[in-house]
Order: sequence, then structure tokens, then C-alpha cells
Amino acid sequence: MNDQELSRFSINQMTVKQLPLPELAEACRELGVGGVGLWREPVQAYGVEAAAKLVRDAGLTVTTLCRGGFLTAIDPVERVGALDDNRAAIDEAATLGTDTLVLVSGGLPAGSKDLHGARERIADALAVLGPYAAERGVRLAIEPLHPMYAADRCVVSTLAQALDLAERFPADQVGVTVDTYHIWWDDRAPEQIARAGAGGRIHTFQLADWTTPLPVGVLNGRGQIGDGAIDMRQWKGYVEAAGYTGHIEVELFNEGLWARDGREVLAETAERFVEHAIRPAAYAGR
Amino acid sequence: MNDQELSRFSINQMTVKQLPLPELAEACRELGVGGVGLWREPVQAYGVEAAAKLVRDAGLTVTTLCRGGFLTAIDPVERVGALDDNRAAIDEAATLGTDTLVLVSGGLPAGSKDLHGARERIADALAVLGPYAAERGVRLAIEPLHPMYAADRCVVSTLAQALDLAERFPADQVGVTVDTYHIWWDDRAPEQIARAGAGGRIHTFQLADWTTPLPVGVLNGRGQIGDGAIDMRQWKGYVEAAGYTGHIEVELFNEGLWARDGREVLAETAERFVEHAIRPAAYAGR
Repeated sequence: MNDQELSRFSINQMTVKQLPLPELAEACRELGVGGVGLWREPVQAYGVEAAAKLVRDAGLTVTTLCRGGFLTAIDPVERVGALDDNRAAIDEAATLGTDTLVLVSGGLPAGSKDLHGARERIADALAVLGPYAAERGVRLAIEPLHPMYAADRCVVSTLAQALDLAERFPADQVGVTVDTYHIWWDDRAPEQIARAGAGGRIHTFQLADWTTPLPVGVLNGRGQIGDGAIDMRQWKGYVEAAGYTGHIEVELFNEGLWARDGREVLAETAERFVEHAIRPAAYAGR
Repeated sequence: MNDQELSRFSINQMTVKQLPLPELAEACRELGVGGVGLWREPVQAYGVEAAAKLVRDAGLTVTTLCRGGFLTAIDPVERVGALDDNRAAIDEAATLGTDTLVLVSGGLPAGSKDLHGARERIADALAVLGPYAAERGVRLAIEPLHPMYAADRCVVSTLAQALDLAERFPADQVGVTVDTYHIWWDDRAPEQIARAGAGGRIHTFQLADWTTPLPVGVLNGRGQIGDGAIDMRQWKGYVEAAGYTGHIEVELFNEGLWARDGREVLAETAERFVEHAIRPAAYAGR
């Protein structure tokens, strides 16, 4: 594992959430990791300005901020609150120096069975937030979440749906997040990646592997790279064929990884990334 | 709830698996339920011929037999075994007098990351099994399972994928299972239902509701009709607009329902079916 092999690697903060931000920055320096995807909650707890200074001093590129979104409420007061919160997230992204805010769009409001209506309310919100973001140099990246989250977390379930929303707006306002965990099952996803690339809308590319059995609530079962069913080289090939040359974030929510030493998990994740996404398959012994 | 409202209702045996087959038949008679979807394991335990006589004497229509499939193995010996087992399932369906065998196609073989290859092996098997089934008056009904089962249970994740497979064969050999639980999130599903109907390939229509949080392993979380996010009338409208006039099975795998009195669950399920799928919305108090 050398610096060249790690040059596009970014560690999403959630993967090693047991590491306080200064320790994460220090561990990245030691390993030669140059990119980090941050989350709002730990950044706010540390202080947004302080976090911005910390990562800047450490020479880290903030590849994304996770996350804005939750834009599906019907209640007008809730909707105003969601817009305000997303404006704050955009401001935080700008302060941190990242050009990408990941959006998890939100699920069905309580009692609603109307997926189409919920998706339209996301579009209404993007019409407000897109210009606000672009004025601050931030792009919104709609993340289609796996269909198992459609009711309670994100009504945008496929890359095609995400692009149907994003393409109503300029690409410097709204694009998509391509995350292997959410789209690996979808035989239409490769053509949708090409569509996204052609429009300049692949705003970030994230990796996680699919392992079973899924845990209760299905949130914290994202597998370590190489442990599951997803061919990482193949998906990296799709996004590269679509013109994406940016960082590749590894974002895992995994109770088993969180229970271990954070620096050890970071090193393992970097190694797995190189083995399964960077080196040719022959070198991985397959 | 009257006989007319229940005329298209079929109870899938798994919904009330705590009821032995004779009790299920008796409970159906008492309630005026005329259709039942059976499963191979309890039918085999009771005896296939004896089960056929029981349901025939009770005047029940066997709407489906669940399930054949698991056709994705690479190992030649396993593949031969799977074909033999599916021929047996077809024979059992014919003996039971049902015209439809539901197929759960199978997941990825251990260590494989090749969804496309697995789907092609299903087609290879259907080329053998389709004629065998049609000669016995049985239609194979590929069931697309929710994408959360793609790795370990069924690599056919959407109605479009199921139809791509089915349409390689005559409709009296291979069609699809439309199950709300698996497709409700998919904005392409309504057009795919129309495609399936136009080709005479809607071989069964099943209902289950989507409730969260999902349980560990995500298998036994199928919600009682009306408890979740799915608009049953809307999906019934789609299949009817596509020309489907057959029975509608309610198939729930739910630990909570299994822990209750089976006859009570059957009665509740019939009531929920009428309330949420049959009566106009106004009568349901919405």
C-alpha cells in the first residue's frame, strides 16, 4: 500500500466514528490518507470553525459533508425548519471547504402512503436550496438509498429517480451520490451512472460492501470492503468510464467495526480499498 | 364483510402457519374463504395426495404452490439436484390442482459477486422446467423479491428483470408473481405490471404491507394489510387495469401474527383485505 494507491482514498468519518476528530486527522497523516468525509453532528460538537482549521492544518481534503436532506415533510412548519437546517448545512459545508453536501432525502411522513408526492416535495425544496448552495460553491448530491429505506429514510431509491430529480436543476446545484451499497443490485445502475457522468452530476462516489444477514433496522450492516457481494472494481470502472476522477469515500456503518480500535479500522479499510478497488484483480489473488 | 367481498381473497398458508392443514380448511369454510396458497413443506408433511383430497373436499381453490426456484447454483451436481427438486414441485402443484408454482430464484452462490451470471443460470433452468411445467398444466411464476434479498435469496429484484427472464419463454410456461411487498418502492413497477398483463404473464397477485423497523435477517417483517406504507387499492388497480381478475393472496411472514391464534389471524386478515383492498376508500373512513 503506497501513497499512489491511496491517492484517491477518502475515509468517511462515520466508518471510524470512535475516533475524535483530532485523532482522525492524526491517523490520516500517519497513514498517508488525504481525504475525509465529515458528518455534521461530530463537526458541530467540535465546533465548525475549529474543525475547518483542524482539517486545513492537517492538509486534508474534505470530500463531502454528510448530510442534508429530510425534505419530505408535509407540515408547513416542519418544511420551513427543514429548509433552515439545510441552509445551515450548506453554510457548514462552505466553512469546511468541501464542495459537496450529501442529501438523504427523507422517508414518508407518518401515515402517508404517497411516494410520488414525497418525491415532488423534495424537488420543491431543491428549487430553494440549489441556488443557495451554488452561491456558496457547494453542490447538493442526492443519495439514492437502497429500497429497503424507502418508507422511513429516503423515498429516492434508485439512481434513475435521483437523476430525474437532479436534472430539473443545473449540475452545479444538484447532482447525485453514487454509493455501491445502495445500487449494487440494480441492473439499470450502470447506464444511470453513464447518464450522471454525461451530465457532470457524479458529485461523490462511495463504497461499502453488502453482507448478510442484515441487522435489525438494517442501518448498521454496511460491510467492510471485500467482505460481501459487491465487485468494487466493476463499479469503480463504471464511474471512471463516466468520467469521474475524484476521491472515493469508504463509508461504513458497522457495529463490529465501531467496537474495535479506530486507527486499526482505518488502516484495515485503507488496505481493503487498495486490494479490492485499486489493484488489478490478479494481484489480489483471484 | 360478505361473501362477495371475499370472493377473490386467498389466504397464503404461511400467513397462518400455526394452523394444521385440516384446521386451515375448516377455518376457511367457516369464514367463507375460497382460496388458499399452499407451501411445499407442510403439504409434504401432511402427504401431497392427502392434502389434495382435503382441499378438494373442502371446495378450496389452490391459488398457488410456494415454492420452486433456487436455480442459481454453479456446481453441476447442485444444478441437477435443483432441477429434480423443481420437477417434483411441479408434480406436487399438478397433484394439488393449482395452475401456478411460485419461484424464488435464488441468491448468489457463496463467494460469487456475479448477479448477471446468476440471472442467466435461472434462464438456463427455465428452459428445462418451463416445458415440463406446461405439459402438466402448471405455470411458473418468477417472483421478483425486494432488492434487500438480492445476495442471499433472489437475484431477481424487479418486475422488469423478472419479465426480461419470463419473456424468453411462452406465457403458459413462465410468468411473474406480483407481490406488493417486493415492488411497492419501484416507480417503474406500474408500467411493468401493464407489460406483464399485456403478455398474459401475471400468474398471481399477492399482498403484504411494508412496516418498519425491519427485523434481523429481514425475512419475517411482512406487515398485516393496513399497518404499513403500501396503498393496496392503488396496486390492485394497477393489476386490474392490466387485465388481472384472479384471486388475491395475502402472504405474511410475521412473528407477531404467528404467535397468535391462527383462526383469529385468518379472520383479521380477511377483514383487513376487505377494508384496504376491496371497499372504496370512503368506506374505510379515509
